[in-house]
Amino acid sequence: MTKKVAVILSGCGVYDGAEIHESVITLLRLDQRGAQVQCFAPNVEQMHVINHLTGEQTQEKRNVLVESARIARGQVKDVQEAKVEDFDALIVPGGFGAAKNLSDFAGKGADCTVQADVLRLAEGFAAANKPVGLICISPALAAKIYGPGVVCTIGNDADTSDAMTKMGATHEECDVHDIVEDTQRRLVSTPAYMLAENISDAAGGIYKLVDRILELTHEDDQ
Amino acid sequence: MTKKVAVILSGCGVYDGAEIHESVITLLRLDQRGAQVQCFAPNVEQMHVINHLTGEQTQEKRNVLVESARIARGQVKDVQEAKVEDFDALIVPGGFGAAKNLSDFAGKGADCTVQADVLRLAEGFAAANKPVGLICISPALAAKIYGPGVVCTIGNDADTSDAMTKMGATHEECDVHDIVEDTQRRLVSTPAYMLAENISDAAGGIYKLVDRILELTHEDDQ
Repeated sequence: MTKKVAVILSGCGVYDGAEIHESVITLLRLDQRGAQVQCFAPNVEQMHVINHLTGEQTQEKRNVLVESARIARGQVKDVQEAKVEDFDALIVPGGFGAAKNLSDFAGKGADCTVQADVLRLAEGFAAANKPVGLICISPALAAKIYGPGVVCTIGNDADTSDAMTKMGATHEECDVHDIVEDTQRRLVSTPAYMLAENISDAAGGIYKLVDRILELTHEDDQ
Repeated sequence: MTKKVAVILSGCGVYDGAEIHESVITLLRLDQRGAQVQCFAPNVEQMHVINHLTGEQTQEKRNVLVESARIARGQVKDVQEAKVEDFDALIVPGGFGAAKNLSDFAGKGADCTVQADVLRLAEGFAAANKPVGLICISPALAAKIYGPGVVCTIGNDADTSDAMTKMGATHEECDVHDIVEDTQRRLVSTPAYMLAENISDAAGGIYKLVDRILELTHEDDQ
């Protein structure tokens, strides 16, 4: 049976949006494994725009939904329209967009809040006990979604994992090619570019995450 | 021996720049096969900026090199700096950027010209008989690079292949999972999103193209 997976993008580019390699590798693996994918993004202005050549902030304004459409080849919807009952699983790729547009974790750390529409959707998947995959920096939001005790990984960055612990998450160190699974909450996470030094490393962990997420959706059939 | 491959990007987004899936899949496969990659892009303004959600042109100005840096995670250089002698092969992903920023094929068809720095580099690879891979719409530029008689594919689109034939190319129809090779010129092409209906289809042909390009570079060792 075809599995339906919602993917939340956060713009288009590692420094101010969704990490492009992580997003494309997620979409590729889901399609290769026969899943049906719908991308979503919040219809909000980006926190800021970074010139990815120089690393400097520009004066431009860009919209998260509109820029996410670049990765999705136009096939992206406002996350407000997403309904948990239409999907078997949710995956959120990383990039600074997860910490700048899907939340304000980049600025506020442990005191962050998650964008309202994104939080509502993610909490819906959690409440329905449907599998969720969080990639790269996006597990920083896990405690806000699942509450205290949620188990996840962002690799081994001390500052980030300290903030996550302060928020109530239980952080487990993880190799770039591996995943961490909270079996009770059915949450799977992988470090990707929090650790990856090249695109193949990122793909290794993301393939494993996507495969495990789809495996969990098939368990729901039994 | 590690092979060095130059990749020319043309922005970031299918409708006004490099096709993101094709670009990332190219980078992924090259890295998986152990090649060393350097991305390049022309340091010029994009022909225009398209809102990828609505398909409409906006009033923004964006630079091809700066936007390409999003796909390359900052690791992209001005194509003016590229030297043929530093590389074993060249690959150009597709997207409208190839027909709007690397050339004006989108507007002028058979009467197009190729951006000067891109043409100089591609002609250099052709003159050195080093392997070149052209993906999606970028084979439309083959006749400008190699001259009359060059064999290549953009899939089966009649208008595009007619224009290419008018420019002197010999167009061969090709399935999305396959490649066309001009064995004399060592040019390999694949249709990707000229035909692909999903990302796995695009990956099929691109993996084959990258593998063949690397195989050709290894023939150069013998």
